[in-house]
Amino acid sequence: MKIALAQLNYHIGNFEANETKILSNLQKAKAENVDLVVFSELAVCGYPPRDFLEFDNFILLCLQSIERIAKECVGIAAIIGGPSWNTLKSGKKLFNTAFFLSEGNISSKHHKQLLPTYDVFDEYRYFERADEVQCIDYLGEKIALTICEDLWNIDGKELYPNSPMERLIEESPDFIINIAASPFAVSQTNHREEVLKWNTDKYNLPVFYVNHIGAQTELIFDGGSCVYDQNGNLISQLPFFEEYFSIFDSKNLKSEEKISALSKYEKLEAALVLGIKDYFRKLNFKTATLGLSGGIDSALTLALAVKALGKKNVFPILMPSQFSSDHSISDSVALCENLGCDYYTIEIEKIYKSFDKELTDLFKGTEFGIAEENIQSRIRGTLLMAQTNKFGSILLNTSNKSELAVGYGTLYGDMAGGLSVIGDVYKTEVFDLCRFINRDIEIIPDNIITKPPSAELRPDQFDSDSLPDYDVLDTILFEYIENRQSPANLIEKGFDEALVKRILKMVNINEYKRHQTPPILRVSSKAFGMGRRMPIVGKYLS
Amino acid sequence: MKIALAQLNYHIGNFEANETKILSNLQKAKAENVDLVVFSELAVCGYPPRDFLEFDNFILLCLQSIERIAKECVGIAAIIGGPSWNTLKSGKKLFNTAFFLSEGNISSKHHKQLLPTYDVFDEYRYFERADEVQCIDYLGEKIALTICEDLWNIDGKELYPNSPMERLIEESPDFIINIAASPFAVSQTNHREEVLKWNTDKYNLPVFYVNHIGAQTELIFDGGSCVYDQNGNLISQLPFFEEYFSIFDSKNLKSEEKISALSKYEKLEAALVLGIKDYFRKLNFKTATLGLSGGIDSALTLALAVKALGKKNVFPILMPSQFSSDHSISDSVALCENLGCDYYTIEIEKIYKSFDKELTDLFKGTEFGIAEENIQSRIRGTLLMAQTNKFGSILLNTSNKSELAVGYGTLYGDMAGGLSVIGDVYKTEVFDLCRFINRDIEIIPDNIITKPPSAELRPDQFDSDSLPDYDVLDTILFEYIENRQSPANLIEKGFDEALVKRILKMVNINEYKRHQTPPILRVSSKAFGMGRRMPIVGKYLS
Repeated sequence: MKIALAQLNYHIGNFEANETKILSNLQKAKAENVDLVVFSELAVCGYPPRDFLEFDNFILLCLQSIERIAKECVGIAAIIGGPSWNTLKSGKKLFNTAFFLSEGNISSKHHKQLLPTYDVFDEYRYFERADEVQCIDYLGEKIALTICEDLWNIDGKELYPNSPMERLIEESPDFIINIAASPFAVSQTNHREEVLKWNTDKYNLPVFYVNHIGAQTELIFDGGSCVYDQNGNLISQLPFFEEYFSIFDSKNLKSEEKISALSKYEKLEAALVLGIKDYFRKLNFKTATLGLSGGIDSALTLALAVKALGKKNVFPILMPSQFSSDHSISDSVALCENLGCDYYTIEIEKIYKSFDKELTDLFKGTEFGIAEENIQSRIRGTLLMAQTNKFGSILLNTSNKSELAVGYGTLYGDMAGGLSVIGDVYKTEVFDLCRFINRDIEIIPDNIITKPPSAELRPDQFDSDSLPDYDVLDTILFEYIENRQSPANLIEKGFDEALVKRILKMVNINEYKRHQTPPILRVSSKAFGMGRRMPIVGKYLS
Repeated sequence: MKIALAQLNYHIGNFEANETKILSNLQKAKAENVDLVVFSELAVCGYPPRDFLEFDNFILLCLQSIERIAKECVGIAAIIGGPSWNTLKSGKKLFNTAFFLSEGNISSKHHKQLLPTYDVFDEYRYFERADEVQCIDYLGEKIALTICEDLWNIDGKELYPNSPMERLIEESPDFIINIAASPFAVSQTNHREEVLKWNTDKYNLPVFYVNHIGAQTELIFDGGSCVYDQNGNLISQLPFFEEYFSIFDSKNLKSEEKISALSKYEKLEAALVLGIKDYFRKLNFKTATLGLSGGIDSALTLALAVKALGKKNVFPILMPSQFSSDHSISDSVALCENLGCDYYTIEIEKIYKSFDKELTDLFKGTEFGIAEENIQSRIRGTLLMAQTNKFGSILLNTSNKSELAVGYGTLYGDMAGGLSVIGDVYKTEVFDLCRFINRDIEIIPDNIITKPPSAELRPDQFDSDSLPDYDVLDTILFEYIENRQSPANLIEKGFDEALVKRILKMVNINEYKRHQTPPILRVSSKAFGMGRRMPIVGKYLS
């Protein structure tokens, strides 16, 4: 059987664009005499549609689209993901379904059994777990059709009591197809490989795997669609982070030239660039603005934005104050020159003084402190937002994961923006990613990378005044956030008790700030945002 | 059997405070010769603990607390909710458990079967569904112990294929106990009554129901613990919105004097006041600030805040501009005088001019518009946040649900704050709630209620310039947000097609703003926030 894998970039709820793309790939497959073309999980509506799934009208539009696509499946078959009604007496009102389309009709429906409900996944919020599964008979071959998580129940401590493959294998299928919506994280590519190999090992069957690519707000899909033969050999790996269409013969799987694996920072850079690009494109915006402080976070954000949107579409603003060092301006200017960006400078001292004056009475007898520092940051936020409101651009937020974790940022000031680009990248990774971007030529001026980090909101202020070294901080944060370690575990690992308690308390009491951050491009296994849901009012470790 | 119901206000993760409160109620019960004292679902850690449940150390602290409480259960038994480890080979690592404590030990564990995973509930994110249930034998009586949702599978289209009572009833229990964590919504009290009555009707057993009271960020628990006899008669209704302890004889259930049901606006007022009060108390804050515009939203928020925190702890700030009408100031002053609040005035015109001046070049050739309007709003946000940063208070946000729905607000300006007090109250309800607050004496000046709503960010601006009448707007919004109706349904109901499409588009494209709002006190069945999870990048109806 000639099978095409269509790794595409869908747009949530944009039925017209999704359908056009699906139909054009179907035509391409027909032209190549393909027997079966495979699209991803919930392709028809994009993933994740979230609570749009609660609107009957949204489901209706999905089903109408699938019916129109089915009509085109003449002389060819297609597998495509979409929601379908649960017609049983009880349970959630929907199934997460793989539709098998052939002979101009919906020939069969195959519902997902294992519904991920953890981290960024909420599938049991919407979907009922299917009880029955069966293979597809097509052109004399038997296909075990599964949906994403259906193949993932592989660990020693399984999340689910049974797996659909245990029943499908009884029908002696010829191969497995898995349609997926598996979002990117740096560690996810290896994990995915392991899962697919575990299945080929266990069932001795080839696997055809089709994932999404493209970003949907915080979730980035890297693709990585692939084919394994029944011995667990990787036959083909579709390129990451781009749309792709590839054809295979199920009876003649020959290993292609191997695509070399991407390094951590290749993946990170590609993911963040795609994340920015799709956020703008899918919201129909072209231009970005951001504040350039002279520090490494805004420098990295600018470099990534220029890659994503083009140098003419990014508008950095320098907003020095009386506390800004000379190098803050000169480094920022050098960066803009390296990137070929125009920039604009607005001094904030006079605006600050006008606030100071109006607050004289209210603040009488108090010292310069956090309130005054934050006013400067909020003046900058207000200027940047004014630019976006006037010229129809989106403000890119430049906070990194370390500072978001400990609350080292000003709400409505440097925490403002439409999209947080590096909010899931620890400070130590920010340094490494900048060095990676500079691998061939110095784009981010070396001085920006090597000078000591500072918020420059009062004289001679450095991050190290109130925070430990970033390599210590990031290790503690990673163990707490990604690995959910206790203070006792951390102290056992050799970290200072007082430091551990201070840091974890900072993380917990700043939940109220993170509640109001822009959506954060997710690149780790535990990002702030939809995948980490913490109480604001709580006392644990705080 | 002498049974005590303990309706208490817990604090998430505050094990010490929760345990102290539980033990003191246990002592009180002992002193009254009670046989069994019943606490609510997940009482030991507070509800909802959310992702704290992913930290093994958090679970350990829960279990240690339960063991200490068990030790005190000598000569008395207790039922109390907490998480427990799932020791099965597969599944989520936890159960949501009701512990039966007696003779100084954990005598048995009863796991929740039906795990709500919709709206604000994420229970299948953490908990495995229990397969086995059994009654408790105690003092010669058999108790069918259930946890909240376990009794809720009652509709024609059930959410779950079976209910634990179907098996428990086979043991011929003498009565049902249900420990709950059922958050408030205006419509929830009636729904809860219906559910409990359905169960007494079906099983012909008395029901003892114990809920939480108190607020945990956005979720408000109203209590409403109660006892029904086997004929579905309400024997006792504990007071709403307060801690309470009440004793019953399971063999002699006599109807008490009936507590009259609360009206919609009695409930709303009590819920919002408790929501504010607990947010401050549990975060260890005492004082609030807010901006007083002269409009009805900030007036209502101030009146509620004064009830919750006391007039000495609320610090309203008037921030008139050149566009403010005289009545904005005079009405605000009259309100503060009625409430006995101090207030402070800061003119924003000079600060605005300093922004205007620094933006002259950048904005050259453009007209006064949204950008300039938003600058004024953000100056106010910055001044209010400066007050909170200087004096350690929390800014109360004053946005209502109608404006949050259509995006009629400025991010980082009037959308700023630590807590949104009336963000789940439609504008038409805001008017009614103000009239209710004025039922005995004019607290909110009548002119604030009767004058046409205006943002006053440019000359002669009124809400009605860009929005339909609020009764039309709110009906469309309610049908879309609460009832998930399609545009076609709304047009069928007689609303103008162009208007419907414009309003629904406004709702959908402003998801990015709502992503960054403060937590909103939930009082409806579908509030913005954790219970409504929508994509930002999406095209549906936009």
